[in-house]
Amino acid sequence: MHHIAPEMKACIDQCLDCYSTCLSTAMGHCLEMGGPHTEKAHFTLMMACAEICRTSAHFMLIGTPHHKHTCAECAEICAECASDCERIGDMDACVDICRRCADSCRKMAA
Amino acid sequence: MHHIAPEMKACIDQCLDCYSTCLSTAMGHCLEMGGPHTEKAHFTLMMACAEICRTSAHFMLIGTPHHKHTCAECAEICAECASDCERIGDMDACVDICRRCADSCRKMAA
Amino acid sequence: MHHIAPEMKACIDQCLDCYSTCLSTAMGHCLEMGGPHTEKAHFTLMMACAEICRTSAHFMLIGTPHHKHTCAECAEICAECASDCERIGDMDACVDICRRCADSCRKMAA
Amino acid sequence: MHHIAPEMKACIDQCLDCYSTCLSTAMGHCLEMGGPHTEKAHFTLMMACAEICRTSAHFMLIGTPHHKHTCAECAEICAECASDCERIGDMDACVDICRRCADSCRKMAA
Repeated sequence: MHHIAPEMKACIDQCLDCYSTCLSTAMGHCLEMGGPHTEKAHFTLMMACAEICRTSAHFMLIGTPHHKHTCAECAEICAECASDCERIGDMDACVDICRRCADSCRKMAA
Repeated sequence: MHHIAPEMKACIDQCLDCYSTCLSTAMGHCLEMGGPHTEKAHFTLMMACAEICRTSAHFMLIGTPHHKHTCAECAEICAECASDCERIGDMDACVDICRRCADSCRKMAA
Repeated sequence: MHHIAPEMKACIDQCLDCYSTCLSTAMGHCLEMGGPHTEKAHFTLMMACAEICRTSAHFMLIGTPHHKHTCAECAEICAECASDCERIGDMDACVDICRRCADSCRKMAA
Repeated sequence: MHHIAPEMKACIDQCLDCYSTCLSTAMGHCLEMGGPHTEKAHFTLMMACAEICRTSAHFMLIGTPHHKHTCAECAEICAECASDCERIGDMDACVDICRRCADSCRKMAA
């Protein structure tokens, strides 16, 4: 990645990792399990999490100062997604990456 | 669009219209004109505007309550993009749709 | 939209309309109905349809000649999505817009 | 990433890496350098490359069999982008990742 500070590079990586994990888990694991995994609020939260992670990475990659605001929103959605995945259970990979991404985005938003 | 209130439908349309106009103007008009049109701050703002419009539309379409936050950010970036396009000049279509999209997003964010 | 031929403008509109309808129907209607609506193959096809429509519109908006290939793929996925929505039933809006988008993309791919 | 075969995981990583490098280089390096770096054909190719990489990763992550077609298109655009970056010069990171991503996508498309 061109001319991007190490801390921002790390946040881009966390965002793309969280995007990948939430999207593949929702479309792989959750659709197969059904029940609470496909209840509207939970599934929508996972898709919102994937999308805001994708967008925050994009904002950092294009170099707009508005990444601070998308990163703040990303931190909030990731934290909410982590809690909801913990509540549903059997989604440890999602819980983990959402927490790490939220931490990383919180720093970039400051 | 499934089960979406008329005011939100209107906002989705404005967002997709603003995304289309900003992206096609940046990649068509701005790249051809060069000079102030491809100065980093202006061009990046146009691409950020296109991307946040795309994301806000997506958030409304998937039905997440977090659309309020992306719409608030979208209103802010669109307003900034309208001003900057006005400063550069010869970008009336962008100025127009950015202002209308900002108004529409401001209502959805409230 | 800047300097885009009328037939291509029409195709961009169809793609964004099909993206909006498929995404909001999957996340609104299908998640609420469950059963065959959330079976993996069907739901994944709807999300693939939404995504390729979004990408084909993007390719036309940035003005890359590669839009011919994404439009060809878009036509194929939309046609498949129309058939699958017809099989499931109660998804007339999706069937309709998928067919119209497939027709429009087929012309742009030629 | 949930239940994804190692070779596909590797391809997703290459796609997201190529997306990140092409986008940040276009918006960072190319906009700053100007001249041949912002000539319409070259800049558009870099943005098309970033977008098809993003889409191919998305298709593999949602688990649609249509990833074969987006990966085939991705391989083609990446190869073209690598050649064009080599022609312009001073874009070794882009050339490298575009070649690696093209190889990886070619395997997934087979």
